[in-house]
Amino acid sequence: MLTLYHGWKSSASRRVRLCLAEKGLTFESKVIDLTKMEHHAPAFLKLNPNGVIPLLILEDGRSLYESGTICEYIDETWPEPPLRPADAYGRAEMRNWIRHVDGLIGNLIIFNWAHSMAKVATQWSDAELAEKLAKVPSKERREAWLRTARKPYTEEERQEARTKLKVGLVDRMEETLRHTSWLAGDTYSLADIGAVPFIKRIDEEIAPEEITPAKHPRVAAWWTAIQSRPAFATAKIGPFTG
Amino acid sequence: MLTLYHGWKSSASRRVRLCLAEKGLTFESKVIDLTKMEHHAPAFLKLNPNGVIPLLILEDGRSLYESGTICEYIDETWPEPPLRPADAYGRAEMRNWIRHVDGLIGNLIIFNWAHSMAKVATQWSDAELAEKLAKVPSKERREAWLRTARKPYTEEERQEARTKLKVGLVDRMEETLRHTSWLAGDTYSLADIGAVPFIKRIDEEIAPEEITPAKHPRVAAWWTAIQSRPAFATAKIGPFTG
Repeated sequence: MLTLYHGWKSSASRRVRLCLAEKGLTFESKVIDLTKMEHHAPAFLKLNPNGVIPLLILEDGRSLYESGTICEYIDETWPEPPLRPADAYGRAEMRNWIRHVDGLIGNLIIFNWAHSMAKVATQWSDAELAEKLAKVPSKERREAWLRTARKPYTEEERQEARTKLKVGLVDRMEETLRHTSWLAGDTYSLADIGAVPFIKRIDEEIAPEEITPAKHPRVAAWWTAIQSRPAFATAKIGPFTG
Repeated sequence: MLTLYHGWKSSASRRVRLCLAEKGLTFESKVIDLTKMEHHAPAFLKLNPNGVIPLLILEDGRSLYESGTICEYIDETWPEPPLRPADAYGRAEMRNWIRHVDGLIGNLIIFNWAHSMAKVATQWSDAELAEKLAKVPSKERREAWLRTARKPYTEEERQEARTKLKVGLVDRMEETLRHTSWLAGDTYSLADIGAVPFIKRIDEEIAPEEITPAKHPRVAAWWTAIQSRPAFATAKIGPFTG
């Protein structure tokens, strides 16, 4: 049995759950509470010194991290149904899509961390905050925790991030979907799975007006098709807010 | 015939040239002068709207960008000699290595851009600088150009970057090479190729004392082995300075 260390609201975890669901693979679920910084706690660091989720533990005890890497491993190991294009060029386009979406994560965090992360982090004393920050190896993530705890992103910053997600993701997807049915050619692939957690949040809170037939008809149809896949329900990509 | 748009000193270009050389593939060489911002010029943007090199043009006219993506495409299309581990887990480790090294590029740029890029950029007038910056889509790269042109990185910043390259790359490679002959298992792979442009610069200027038998014996031996491969000479990974 596979074991997955993940967070229900973590974008990278959502990708891996969706990939596993498409393959019909079940797993033992170990939820890591990011608001409690369980991913930087000694027990988890023993499993993954990089301190990130999702982490997939294989049956033989070896483990893998990074959603893009995990998903491609899953598709290579359990090839049916295929989640990568059959040709090398299609796979290259798929990898560039995933990499491109990865590069936009900072813009998503500005909105995502304003919910349960902020609820917890704003309650920390200065001493607690300093102690928590000392555990975070990435400078970008330290900055995000600090902002979340003490200096919420301004409306101007949120607008800038919103624009980047619109132009860098939604407009770009619309353009690609003019030529192909899915992001990396005419079959559903890991490129589509990579975009799902982003479009979910854009549609839910960040810029719902963009994921509409009026503004981006092809993205809206793509999103409807994604949500009607049985794997989408299995993967439990639920609401962030409320 | 393949066509490669590249820069002799661009780290990503060096990876692709090394990969092509290992395969014995020749290409038409189109050099893009980054100091002249040729990668943001209309002629190049027509070929690659993302404005980045390397760009590989295939025989049928289709193109690919991103060194990691290009190298994996090359290995899938011309499988001999193989540059990826034979097993899925090894390939996953290889991809995580490449991704990890990619994440350190900002630290390398601090040193790399202080040479020919700085020589040119410091000569620009304020109006020229503003005009150049307006062409750069990435915020990080705009910042790097601005710093290079007007406010050279301080010794403290250089030291911080040096430490990140030592801890994040050289120490980590040494640890991996305790267990395997190459970065992703016991065969030379794209993970090793990914690290080459970084180790070249660390050994040449950034922290040569680290790439020694005294400090990192396994990395030093790895570097000697890399440089003795015929492909290393073919790929022309020459000095930055002088």
